[in-house]
Parts: sequence; structure tokens; C-alpha cells
Amino acid sequence: MPEETVYRYKMIISYDGTHYCGWQIQPNAVSIQEEIEKALYRMFQKVIRIHSAGRTDAGVHAMGQVCHFNIEKSIIPEDLQRSLNGLLPHDIRIKEIEEVDLEFHARFSAKSKSYHYHIWLDPVRDPFWRHFSYYEKRRISFVRLKQAAKLFEGTHDFSSFANCRDGRDKAVNPIRTIDKVRVVRQRGGVRIEFYGKSFLYKMVRNMVGAILEVASGKASLEDIETIFAAKDRKQAFKAIPPEGLFLMEVRY
Amino acid sequence: MPEETVYRYKMIISYDGTHYCGWQIQPNAVSIQEEIEKALYRMFQKVIRIHSAGRTDAGVHAMGQVCHFNIEKSIIPEDLQRSLNGLLPHDIRIKEIEEVDLEFHARFSAKSKSYHYHIWLDPVRDPFWRHFSYYEKRRISFVRLKQAAKLFEGTHDFSSFANCRDGRDKAVNPIRTIDKVRVVRQRGGVRIEFYGKSFLYKMVRNMVGAILEVASGKASLEDIETIFAAKDRKQAFKAIPPEGLFLMEVRY
Repeated sequence: MPEETVYRYKMIISYDGTHYCGWQIQPNAVSIQEEIEKALYRMFQKVIRIHSAGRTDAGVHAMGQVCHFNIEKSIIPEDLQRSLNGLLPHDIRIKEIEEVDLEFHARFSAKSKSYHYHIWLDPVRDPFWRHFSYYEKRRISFVRLKQAAKLFEGTHDFSSFANCRDGRDKAVNPIRTIDKVRVVRQRGGVRIEFYGKSFLYKMVRNMVGAILEVASGKASLEDIETIFAAKDRKQAFKAIPPEGLFLMEVRY
Repeated sequence: MPEETVYRYKMIISYDGTHYCGWQIQPNAVSIQEEIEKALYRMFQKVIRIHSAGRTDAGVHAMGQVCHFNIEKSIIPEDLQRSLNGLLPHDIRIKEIEEVDLEFHARFSAKSKSYHYHIWLDPVRDPFWRHFSYYEKRRISFVRLKQAAKLFEGTHDFSSFANCRDGRDKAVNPIRTIDKVRVVRQRGGVRIEFYGKSFLYKMVRNMVGAILEVASGKASLEDIETIFAAKDRKQAFKAIPPEGLFLMEVRY
């Protein structure tokens, strides 16, 4: 019998996460992963599992999520993209698709990721931004916001800024390196950009929560240091809501 | 008995029209006008009728709709704005509010209006633009698009580009003047901007429909001239869908 040939495809995906329970398949809820696997099933009449660069939570958006999957036949990537986009709901779009080496893995091959978090500060919230930004009602100091953001750069034990998942008690390895945190003012508010190799569960939302506590004057820069040192999620501030968060890019 | 004093307020309103039947109150459907009048009712325990610069259809958006209303007491505009925004759904926002002279009328005092229509042209539609642009699948010539757009500038009989409303057979006066039509390329596509004193019912969507027929090569510039000359809506192309249309500004 001839050896079965397998082809691997990499996709870049954009989605409005507002109406989904997140990336990962869950019972009794609609996920991004499920919608894409359903579309692949309709195309190939078989279950094709897709593997993403990382899960996103309910309400979190993506402009550059990446995933890969294997199929037993070679297809013209543009045809595959067109067919999938024809089957997918309009809030999920395949932006790019290409054949990759079987060594490529959406999660393990990733060199770095970036996330943007949008914060609306103007007293009158723009109705067109309501699902895509967090509305901060408190008065914010930009100087303090930038100072707080800087504290997260570099290599740290992020235990205090990681939630537990899958019934696990703690992240296996809570050490992470954030290469850069940028604070960019934009119409109506500000966005905070995070660049790093990888992030723990809910880490970005937990960091933004802490940064806003400092920016609003409710916490001090020393409080952030103390929370880092505690290595305990319970010592920190609560996570900020999901709607302001975008997975922007995964680099390989 | 003392004479009753009346105060008039002007509001600038922004709304995401996706989930509404349009501006105007209709039975068995939720309208922008109804939501705002309901909020005013909750504040003042009486029916306050609001008058807009113009109706917008189901699915049409606004960044600068204007309306006015009268009340029998003087209120600090900022307080009124804050209270209304607290009562309104998040897809409708009062951007500005000020007391105006009783002579002011949102519709009759308007000197000019501008509308933007967003057209998405890239084969992969951005999920975040899906409610805010029309997805044109045909290949478009920008030269022809601009040439067609220019034909609508100036003073014309727009009978062929106006739908009938309220069971009326024709617009009472179909002569309108469009001061300017601008074509602006933007990420993923193009927007067409219309500036004029006033517009007939569905006129912008009918003009965009015709412009795209020319831009896609399905119609000629002469066809537009012929349709103008026919002064008959039935001779023209169909209106483009509402989701790409924004009422941007009303000037007084």
C-alpha cells in the first residue's frame, strides 16, 4: 500500500468575538474553532482538527489568529480560502492561507505574539466602539498609566497575573518575558500594546486591570511590585472585561 | 396665569443602526426615535416629541444626526446629556446637547448635510466592517467610479433617484442640488461622500447603486444621463443596501 501523503495548511484568521464563547470548543456554546471545523467538515466530509496559536476567551477578538491543520490532499490555497469564507459566518474570516512544512505548529513554532487592549475614556462612548473597547469611567493619568505599563516589561514570575485553567492549581511555568508594552493615545481613549513570546491565561486582561488601578490613582506603582512578589493571583486586582482585547499578530 | 416658558434643546446623536427599523417610530419595530422619546419620558414623566434633521432607514447609521425638542423647564445641558445616555441603549449616544433659540428647527434650519457610503472591495471582507460597509464582489474601475460620481454634482431633477414614501406618487419637488461628491480610497475599499442642502428619500443609496453599475462596467456614463432624463425611478438601478450608509453631519 502506498504511504499516505499529508499536507499541512496555515491560516490567518480575523474574528469579531462578540457572539462567541471564545476560540475553544465547549458544550452548549458556539466557538470559533467549532465554526471553522464545521466548515472544513462540510468541505471534506471528515473531521479535521485545527490547532491555534492560542485560545481567546469569550468576547475577545482577533485580527491575526493563526491555526494549522492537516489534510490528505493538496489543494490550491486560494480555492480553500474562498470556499471556507463562503461557508463561515461573516464575523469569522480567513485572511490568508498557505501550505506549510509538516514541522510547522501554530502554537509551538510561534516566536512572538502581540495583543492590543482598547480603552475608551471620553465621557460619551462611541456606539461603534461599544463591543471593541472597555469603557473606563474614572479619570486617568497618562503619566501613571505609562509608568505602570513599563513595570510589566522584561522577565518576571507572572503568577499573580495568571488565572488558573483546566482545574490546574497554577501555571506550570509562570515565568514569561514581555519584550515591550506600548501606550498609544487614540481617538476617544488609549490602547495598550503587548509584545512577547507567550502569555499566561488571562494575563493581558489582568495586567490591564492593574495598570488602570494605578492610572486612576487607586493603586500605587509599589502595589504592582508587591503583587508581583506575592506570586499569588488572589493578591491582584480583577481582570478587565474581554471586549477591548484583540490578538493582533503571531510571528514565526 | 403666568405665561408658560418653553425651552428648546438641540442634540447631536450617534447611532449604530444595525438593530433598528430606522429613525422613525413604527408599529411592531424598535426605532431610534422611540428609544430617545422613551428615555425623555422616563426623565420627565411626559411625552416629549423629538424632531430630527431627517429620517434614516433601517440599518443606516449616524455619526451626526441632529434633533430638537421642547420642554417647560430649563436644564443644565450636560446633566440632561448624562441622564439620557444613562437611560439609552449603548448603540445610541447623545454626543452633544445645547439650548437653542425657539426659531431653531432641526430639519428646516439645516443648511447642508453630508452622508458617507462605505464600500468594501477586498475579496476578504473584514469581519469588523460587516455591518458598516457594502461588500461589492465585482471588479471596480476607480476611474469610472469617479466619473460616474461627478455626474451627480450640481442641480438636477432627481426623480429617477428617489423612492416614493408615504403612499405618495412622487416627491413634491424632485429638484435638488449636490454641492460635492468625493471619492476617497480607504483600507479595503472606498467611500463616497455626498454634500448637499437636502436629499430625497433613498437618494444616496440609489445614486451609489448607479455609480457601482458604471464602475463595474455594467452601465455606461450615458446610461446615467438617460436615467436622469427619464425622471422615472423605475428606469434606474436598484438601491444599494443600507449598512454602508452614515449620516455624518448636519450644518446650520
